[in-house]
Amino acid sequence: MDFSEKSLIMHEENQGKIEVTSKIKVENREDLSIAYTPGVAEPCRKIYEDQKDAYKYTTKGNLVAVVTDGSAVLGLGDIGPEAAMPVMEGKSILFKEFADVNAFPICLATNEVEEIVKAVKLIAPTFGGINLEDISAPRCFEIEERLNKELDIPVFHDDQHGTAIVVSAGLINALKIVNKKIEDIKVVVSGDGSAGIAIVKMLLNLGVQNILVCGKEGILYEDYSHNKYKNEIAKITNKDQKRGNLKDALVGVDVFIGVSVGNIVTEDMIKSMNKDPIVFAMANPIPEIMPDLAIKAGAKVVGSGRSDFANQINNVLAFPGIFRGALDIRAKEINQEMKLAAAYAIANLISQEELKEDYVIPDVFDKRVVDHISKAVREAAVKTRVNRI
Amino acid sequence: MDFSEKSLIMHEENQGKIEVTSKIKVENREDLSIAYTPGVAEPCRKIYEDQKDAYKYTTKGNLVAVVTDGSAVLGLGDIGPEAAMPVMEGKSILFKEFADVNAFPICLATNEVEEIVKAVKLIAPTFGGINLEDISAPRCFEIEERLNKELDIPVFHDDQHGTAIVVSAGLINALKIVNKKIEDIKVVVSGDGSAGIAIVKMLLNLGVQNILVCGKEGILYEDYSHNKYKNEIAKITNKDQKRGNLKDALVGVDVFIGVSVGNIVTEDMIKSMNKDPIVFAMANPIPEIMPDLAIKAGAKVVGSGRSDFANQINNVLAFPGIFRGALDIRAKEINQEMKLAAAYAIANLISQEELKEDYVIPDVFDKRVVDHISKAVREAAVKTRVNRI
Repeated sequence: MDFSEKSLIMHEENQGKIEVTSKIKVENREDLSIAYTPGVAEPCRKIYEDQKDAYKYTTKGNLVAVVTDGSAVLGLGDIGPEAAMPVMEGKSILFKEFADVNAFPICLATNEVEEIVKAVKLIAPTFGGINLEDISAPRCFEIEERLNKELDIPVFHDDQHGTAIVVSAGLINALKIVNKKIEDIKVVVSGDGSAGIAIVKMLLNLGVQNILVCGKEGILYEDYSHNKYKNEIAKITNKDQKRGNLKDALVGVDVFIGVSVGNIVTEDMIKSMNKDPIVFAMANPIPEIMPDLAIKAGAKVVGSGRSDFANQINNVLAFPGIFRGALDIRAKEINQEMKLAAAYAIANLISQEELKEDYVIPDVFDKRVVDHISKAVREAAVKTRVNRI
Repeated sequence: MDFSEKSLIMHEENQGKIEVTSKIKVENREDLSIAYTPGVAEPCRKIYEDQKDAYKYTTKGNLVAVVTDGSAVLGLGDIGPEAAMPVMEGKSILFKEFADVNAFPICLATNEVEEIVKAVKLIAPTFGGINLEDISAPRCFEIEERLNKELDIPVFHDDQHGTAIVVSAGLINALKIVNKKIEDIKVVVSGDGSAGIAIVKMLLNLGVQNILVCGKEGILYEDYSHNKYKNEIAKITNKDQKRGNLKDALVGVDVFIGVSVGNIVTEDMIKSMNKDPIVFAMANPIPEIMPDLAIKAGAKVVGSGRSDFANQINNVLAFPGIFRGALDIRAKEINQEMKLAAAYAIANLISQEELKEDYVIPDVFDKRVVDHISKAVREAAVKTRVNRI
């Protein structure tokens, strides 16, 4: 039985994966009077007097909404809010199981930016943070920007930043192995969707100077697209106004990062790269090039999204610890410094002695990850003064 | 230590009362592949093909949103969404503890009817039902009407219908004791807010012919108010265009039902009622007349909202079982027939032999209540063809 069949049976047997449970028992009149009326009026009064007390007397401070419109779900595309629910429940239980964050799926019956922004703002009083999920580009950028500006709780689009953080962690470690400096390397990012654009921004923040981005029509150049986000990225990456396809782009570069589609990179293309190529081929379920092929063609460090090869690049390494840290310190936002701190925290979990070609990324189930990231995120939040405790 | 102090300590110790937990463990790669990618794509696909499958593979079918704008919370009034959260969490845990319904608080940052309706419609794909809570009149009527019309899942404003159902159950039993027929009795309802209006509508459905409603300015009569809901109620109750205050209204009636304010009914007023008066004085925490005083003045059956007197009229007797039944049968709505069925189910839990002046309402913790109501609600849903299974 494959994972699809097993998953179907598990989902049906459990009728979904989440449960909303009570932290306390309500078994007698006294319990009822404390948890509900008349006693509950007192915490209400306290919060009415000082809204900050919501963090003291309610679940808000440890509660994240996992918000989607179902427009870009896994590889399935725009399947709508109802069909997106299993993924959002999945995300919610990963928050709980990995970092003890209470997370709740909110699947929205709209694809319009204004309505999504409005809905999230209206429901925000319940939550301590917002995790945007599987919302298609370019709407996801505007929605995140707007919500970041208009809400005073952290807003984080995991498809962008989660991926970018784990890729960055892997790159930091891979560069130690090939002994190259981040400011010297040439990078090609294949994929100009939300993950690709977020990766480019993060790489620039990490100090990478030379990046080309390839979309479906080849290397991005200025005014290549009507999409302002792609244009912006083209402008800050391809300064020489280079043209060509992915094959052209890869000649003489040090790093390939793929968040695009399967089987588009050949062994010859890997061979055309600089010495000791680093290849992160993350298309799912079929990578841009299969990891074993990439190694055969001479790639020094290879990662993918797959759990059956070394160096699995999986968002679950990042988002639980990032929200754990942001919530614990009541951060107003999750800023670049916090994201960078998370990337370095993931990378630094692997000691210089442990570091190997096939171990640049910690294991998804490494119990140290969440604490390590959340500590780094808290410190970065304090340093950039976005913390509230 | 009183309930307020105990409640404050309990809420702070637990940082709220709800938790979003996972029904399954995620401890290894196989678990992850079944609960999340790649396995989760399969239930998504199934739901995309047939939206009904959301009930099969997700939590939707057993998940209720407890929605408020924080405008009419307990006796505290318009304290806003953040301060309403402890009550909504309380309601959520009662759903879970009493009827194993997963319920989640949604506290909305708006008081506008259009925005509330819009927000609830946008988040509806996640939920199998909507429980409206502590939204002030008259907006609550329009919001419920609109959502009932525009959504295909049950929408239930508990402050209205929950109260009306439990009062009706108490009245059905009390009439057996005083040996009066429902169509012969005269009733005064004190309170023209959402609960009062819902009680009147339900009494009319039960067969009561003669009702007067008293608001702050006395007996409601036609064109008494600019509020169309109050006017409508005045029109269908006070057919003789009677004028006067609560004291005038009570002379010669059989039943007093109070959902207004404390200490407004005197012993003399009880004495002015018909033989064997029935008095349900539900203002909280101080009833319209204290139960012991009412009995001293000659009331035959007395109920109140208080747990320290007999016949406690508490919504928690109704809403868990009603939603349990409606969800189990995937009802499209909770209609009058289902509400009446719930009232009779509560009343009929007490056998003719057990029935006494001080036992016309089952105990809140009577374990039989939820099953009894949910069965009756399911049957009424099938009879009125609003069920989907």
